[in-house]
Amino acid sequence: MDTSSINGILCDIGGVLYEGETPYPGAVEAVARLKASRPVRFITNTTQKTGAQVVAKLSAMGFDIDPSEVMTALDVTKAYLKRHGSTATFLLTDSAQRFFDDLPSEPCRFVVVGDAQENFTYARMNAAFRTLVEGGELLAAAKNRYFKDHDGRLSMDAGGFVSALEFASGKTAKVIGKPSADFYTLACASMGIEPGSAVMIGDDIESDIGGAQKAGLQGILVRTGKFQPSDLQRGITPDAVADSIASIML
Amino acid sequence: MDTSSINGILCDIGGVLYEGETPYPGAVEAVARLKASRPVRFITNTTQKTGAQVVAKLSAMGFDIDPSEVMTALDVTKAYLKRHGSTATFLLTDSAQRFFDDLPSEPCRFVVVGDAQENFTYARMNAAFRTLVEGGELLAAAKNRYFKDHDGRLSMDAGGFVSALEFASGKTAKVIGKPSADFYTLACASMGIEPGSAVMIGDDIESDIGGAQKAGLQGILVRTGKFQPSDLQRGITPDAVADSIASIML
Repeated sequence: MDTSSINGILCDIGGVLYEGETPYPGAVEAVARLKASRPVRFITNTTQKTGAQVVAKLSAMGFDIDPSEVMTALDVTKAYLKRHGSTATFLLTDSAQRFFDDLPSEPCRFVVVGDAQENFTYARMNAAFRTLVEGGELLAAAKNRYFKDHDGRLSMDAGGFVSALEFASGKTAKVIGKPSADFYTLACASMGIEPGSAVMIGDDIESDIGGAQKAGLQGILVRTGKFQPSDLQRGITPDAVADSIASIML
Repeated sequence: MDTSSINGILCDIGGVLYEGETPYPGAVEAVARLKASRPVRFITNTTQKTGAQVVAKLSAMGFDIDPSEVMTALDVTKAYLKRHGSTATFLLTDSAQRFFDDLPSEPCRFVVVGDAQENFTYARMNAAFRTLVEGGELLAAAKNRYFKDHDGRLSMDAGGFVSALEFASGKTAKVIGKPSADFYTLACASMGIEPGSAVMIGDDIESDIGGAQKAGLQGILVRTGKFQPSDLQRGITPDAVADSIASIML
């Protein structure tokens, strides 16, 4: 890939910088190197943590990352609700939901779905469905298919539950996080650069690479995190593939 | 519609014969009249009851229906598993799952999804997802979007949760119940008639009417149960529309 035209870097977090609670070998140094070369934004579809919580976790692992350099799907979802002057029926973990406590309690025109884990109960799903049937709009903070869980196996992410509500209600979700072009454009704009001069680094062939490419960025796939060799046969061609973030030279 | 060529009748149950625990006015008499005119099969996507349980409920309400005249999605799902010599990971209510207790405990090559209600927990959904990722096949005992609940409002049916597993795993479910053409063909065959000479009576524009028409039957939509006026604007044209089963003369 041509790196000379790259003026900014977007980088996924989980599965690229660390796994579980441990940074990948060389990842801390790689982040320092990337930041020294160009502006960087760390963007994540996590819907369990706010930007501040993500920074705290990264700092504890030794990464030197500023809160202004992080954008999570949860942050962008809250900004979206504020812009529309509405709160929502939330399908989120309890702690993620508390992040929205300062929104006014009405009007409630949206259903927001994130990675709610044990809060994906039938009762809560059905309440969300009824809100949609009665006119609510569906927002997917993220629509990822799965993530690599603590036990090393894949687990269902929010995407399936978004699909469930779409199918039952007949409505289509607006996706706030990756692979939404809005999310990539917003992250590039925060660095003052155009998508065409940015590169995205991620482990999710669809959300990170496919999404970034559709928004006009280049995409580098890393062979860490949720990467599986079969990802390269799914009709999306990364601009480059790297063994890990440590081997990316930009 | 032309009724002279009709040699057999298929009839949905919930929302057509009764609502809650109460038969619709004239429904008991209508069933007797239909049965006197032609062979009838009562087919239902319920995945909470076996045929025998359905008959017991109908008898208690005064309907004269023989077990041999009833086919439920649960019965057909069990027949499918037996034919394939396999058990499954089940997403069903506890009582529905007990209906499968006599299957051999292995091999387990399928995930079966029905209307599991409170058993649609994240843990169970994720276990089913993992079975699919590791090679299992997905069977939707039914894939209905919603049903009319005890409180008179719509509630999510199994379909959304089937979609969730399809989206997360990338696999497509085989649908056993309506609107599967197999289900309609099987029900017609049990009466010794061709789909082209059968009519289906139901309250679900997609599953009952659209599905039956695709399988070659005619379809009569009743304005009871989950019927909503907007159903007639969804691109499916019933061969006839009746206020209720009581007003159907065949």
